[in-house]
Amino acid sequence: MGGDFAPEQVIKGAVSAINDPQCDFDILLCGPEAAVKEELKKNGYSGNAITVIDAPDLVAMDESPTQVLKTKPKSGLVTCVGLQKQGLAAASVSAGNSGAMMAACLMILGRAADVSRPAIACAVPTTKRQAILLDCGANVDEKASVLVDFALCGSVYAEAVMGYENPTVGLINVGEEEKKGGEVVQEAHQLLKQAPINFIGNVEGRDFIKGHADVVVAPGYTGNVMLKLMEGFYELAHEVFDGVNTEKAKKFDYLWDYRNHGGGLLLGLNGVGIITHGRADSVAIHHSLFTACKFAKAGVPAKIAEKLSAIKKD
Amino acid sequence: MGGDFAPEQVIKGAVSAINDPQCDFDILLCGPEAAVKEELKKNGYSGNAITVIDAPDLVAMDESPTQVLKTKPKSGLVTCVGLQKQGLAAASVSAGNSGAMMAACLMILGRAADVSRPAIACAVPTTKRQAILLDCGANVDEKASVLVDFALCGSVYAEAVMGYENPTVGLINVGEEEKKGGEVVQEAHQLLKQAPINFIGNVEGRDFIKGHADVVVAPGYTGNVMLKLMEGFYELAHEVFDGVNTEKAKKFDYLWDYRNHGGGLLLGLNGVGIITHGRADSVAIHHSLFTACKFAKAGVPAKIAEKLSAIKKD
Repeated sequence: MGGDFAPEQVIKGAVSAINDPQCDFDILLCGPEAAVKEELKKNGYSGNAITVIDAPDLVAMDESPTQVLKTKPKSGLVTCVGLQKQGLAAASVSAGNSGAMMAACLMILGRAADVSRPAIACAVPTTKRQAILLDCGANVDEKASVLVDFALCGSVYAEAVMGYENPTVGLINVGEEEKKGGEVVQEAHQLLKQAPINFIGNVEGRDFIKGHADVVVAPGYTGNVMLKLMEGFYELAHEVFDGVNTEKAKKFDYLWDYRNHGGGLLLGLNGVGIITHGRADSVAIHHSLFTACKFAKAGVPAKIAEKLSAIKKD
Repeated sequence: MGGDFAPEQVIKGAVSAINDPQCDFDILLCGPEAAVKEELKKNGYSGNAITVIDAPDLVAMDESPTQVLKTKPKSGLVTCVGLQKQGLAAASVSAGNSGAMMAACLMILGRAADVSRPAIACAVPTTKRQAILLDCGANVDEKASVLVDFALCGSVYAEAVMGYENPTVGLINVGEEEKKGGEVVQEAHQLLKQAPINFIGNVEGRDFIKGHADVVVAPGYTGNVMLKLMEGFYELAHEVFDGVNTEKAKKFDYLWDYRNHGGGLLLGLNGVGIITHGRADSVAIHHSLFTACKFAKAGVPAKIAEKLSAIKKD
């Protein structure tokens, strides 16, 4: 029931994913049973690859995360993450209250060994290949060591899921020189130089789009603003160039449409949590489910835990 | 001699501005006399609306600002700002070392009454009308009260230069709710609510592009990343849609080309300082000179000082 267009678009997206010839997973839909079944029927689905799990509590988009955890154990998102904890689901996807989803994942699944704070990682197109931007808004006012954890998590993700060999990692900043940026950013730069990753230094906003780094670390506040700014700019360009049908234009339109990106991945958890856009439609839900499956199969959480444990032991 | 393409592009831009039928100002070109005169000759200029002021010291793009001020009093930028202080120039424009330009303006012109820190303000196109984004990178790690000064300066600027009546002011943030963002941003939100401006609350990255506010306040680190991200995204779109000749496309291309924006204005000084892009070409220089003149004529520095004095007195 999460997101602006639930349950219609969420369930339509789930049915679309299940009917995709490439689909190799089953779906557990967590929500008020009657409403969900009704919607499934509307979408003409009667197979057994989708199971409805009754979760009658409804969560508003602006409800306090701690309040949701305390008072709504039977909400879709808490139920869904709980199923993962019990080993009955491999991943959890929500288009609902992102703070509540983050809190549920953190409390129920727990953090991967030694990760200080989970981050939201998003795959963003660039002039070269997709880059991972993190944190996209799970945190604010991070310490330098937290930014380093983001870099480690992002690096493992780029390698395990995107298949990038020795992915380059950059720190978003106002200039290339080490001494640029505020206190925390400068400290993070020094720590990143010593981290067991392929750190290439600071990356400016313009160079981010040019794909100078495979993984770009940003404080959550700035990363969130960046993500939404790109979304707004894409929408503007989409409107301006509506009707242009060149190959380049079609590719641009596909790549930059946030619905095709699979949502934001929570990195640093003992499990797989995906937060899709609140405005997610069926296309976005479809892609998020595939991303969740890919992420779970690649065993990213275990790989992140392993890498971080190895580092902290040194 | 400042910027990546000086002196060629800088002097070409100055000649182009002087030859513009709308030009109603004279130009003092501050740089090594022989080199500048040689370049003027190449551009076929022999009139008397451009005067060359000998300033033989050269400033590198990565030189420390304090070092420049101490050791290079005869550099173009220090000379140029000095002329303004003496009342011989109405405004100063530089495409060179922006830190040094900022420091020179701050030390030589001084801050407008009660402004804590000057900010770089840039006019950015939106789906509606141009918005002022500030700070675009003059500061890092600002206190909440500094963000409020940015809002006041930006508001005066939008009114005096852009002619916006009672301009709306927004705070860039990760969500609309008051409690979003880090400690400083949340504190700034509360202070902005009480400030004598038309504060409309938080603005997310996507809404910034949609023109939800006329003036958007951002910490310098984030504002700089935003500005450069938009520049990169524009360049990408420009490349993708090269050859598309619809009216909409031409308008988009004109509006988003940073060269047409007149550079970054230092707000909060007792004078007019403009920092253009390091990659400024003659078109960018041309526009920056016109912007500088417009800004000086509107008497923005005095208006900002007046507004701030009135507020602090209350």
